[in-house]
Amino acid sequence: MTQAMQEPRIRNGVNVDTMFGTLDAIKAQPELGTFQFRATNRWLGGAHNRSTIKEFYGAGQVDQTRAEPFMLDAGEPPVLLGANEGPNPAEHLLHALAACLTTSLVYVAAARGVHLDAVESTLTGDMDVRGALGLAKDVPNRYQNIRVTFRITSDAPEEKLAEIVARAQQRSAVFDSVSNPVPVTVDFQKAA
Amino acid sequence: MTQAMQEPRIRNGVNVDTMFGTLDAIKAQPELGTFQFRATNRWLGGAHNRSTIKEFYGAGQVDQTRAEPFMLDAGEPPVLLGANEGPNPAEHLLHALAACLTTSLVYVAAARGVHLDAVESTLTGDMDVRGALGLAKDVPNRYQNIRVTFRITSDAPEEKLAEIVARAQQRSAVFDSVSNPVPVTVDFQKAA
Repeated sequence: MTQAMQEPRIRNGVNVDTMFGTLDAIKAQPELGTFQFRATNRWLGGAHNRSTIKEFYGAGQVDQTRAEPFMLDAGEPPVLLGANEGPNPAEHLLHALAACLTTSLVYVAAARGVHLDAVESTLTGDMDVRGALGLAKDVPNRYQNIRVTFRITSDAPEEKLAEIVARAQQRSAVFDSVSNPVPVTVDFQKAA
Repeated sequence: MTQAMQEPRIRNGVNVDTMFGTLDAIKAQPELGTFQFRATNRWLGGAHNRSTIKEFYGAGQVDQTRAEPFMLDAGEPPVLLGANEGPNPAEHLLHALAACLTTSLVYVAAARGVHLDAVESTLTGDMDVRGALGLAKDVPNRYQNIRVTFRITSDAPEEKLAEIVARAQQRSAVFDSVSNPVPVTVDFQKAA
């Protein structure tokens, strides 16, 4: 057994051998790429609600690797009629975006052999809440814009980092979901 | 002093008097509706990263009501090369959407005098990860669609609940941000 077979290549905390194995498997069997993510949410009063996240469907099966569910609380600050029960939903959206761009960046760097020492980002999103409050018909409810600034510590040259940041945007699922329209259907049942 | 002045009207956990006061204040001074939400994120290795959320700008000032920052962890399941360090970014997006629709629904109901006993929702989002993995150029990275189903316990008639669910969608900032394109700019600095 050679050393290469015994020791997986880990770059940026990512097992690169597993990464390329996963890519090969999905390339060979495209239906393995079909995923369905899931969340359930329960209202806890006022601005407070909590999501539970555990199973998802992907790679041909329902994932069972999470022994316990993740719980996420959302709230609102007092100025938006809550009691800071958690980050507000618009802030959670910024986190989803930051997390997805960061993971895309780290994975792209790992695949390209670029070592990263540190990755930090700051996000700001402008919103005129008159839209969401129903006070101005010409004001959209959504973020007017979101700005993301990464600060990357790496021995790679700046041009290489620029390529990786660009590719991370091209690959990020949440960046794409926020930048482009996603069809969302909402229905309800009245409990008996 | 009348009883009405002493006891604020609380409906669905929302102070309705404060709500209408807030609406009146922003109506009179539209610039109070200008908000900027903020997050910072730090990579912790592999698929693991953490956002810190504390201050935001809104209603004419930087909000200082949060003594401690909120921390949110993101990760990936093993099949997506992580170790379940947290919900993955796409799952965080579902939570942001669930939370925003729920709070919009609760606030709209409070404003319209509708009492809610319970609100639950389930969300599913379909994604072909071949897009994000760079394995199929014709497959978008984003969610193909997201479905939200509310289950509402209330003494209000079904037609009234249908109106409230419809209005919640019209008012939700995250629903609007996911359903419609938001301009996102990404840049980076290489740390010295």
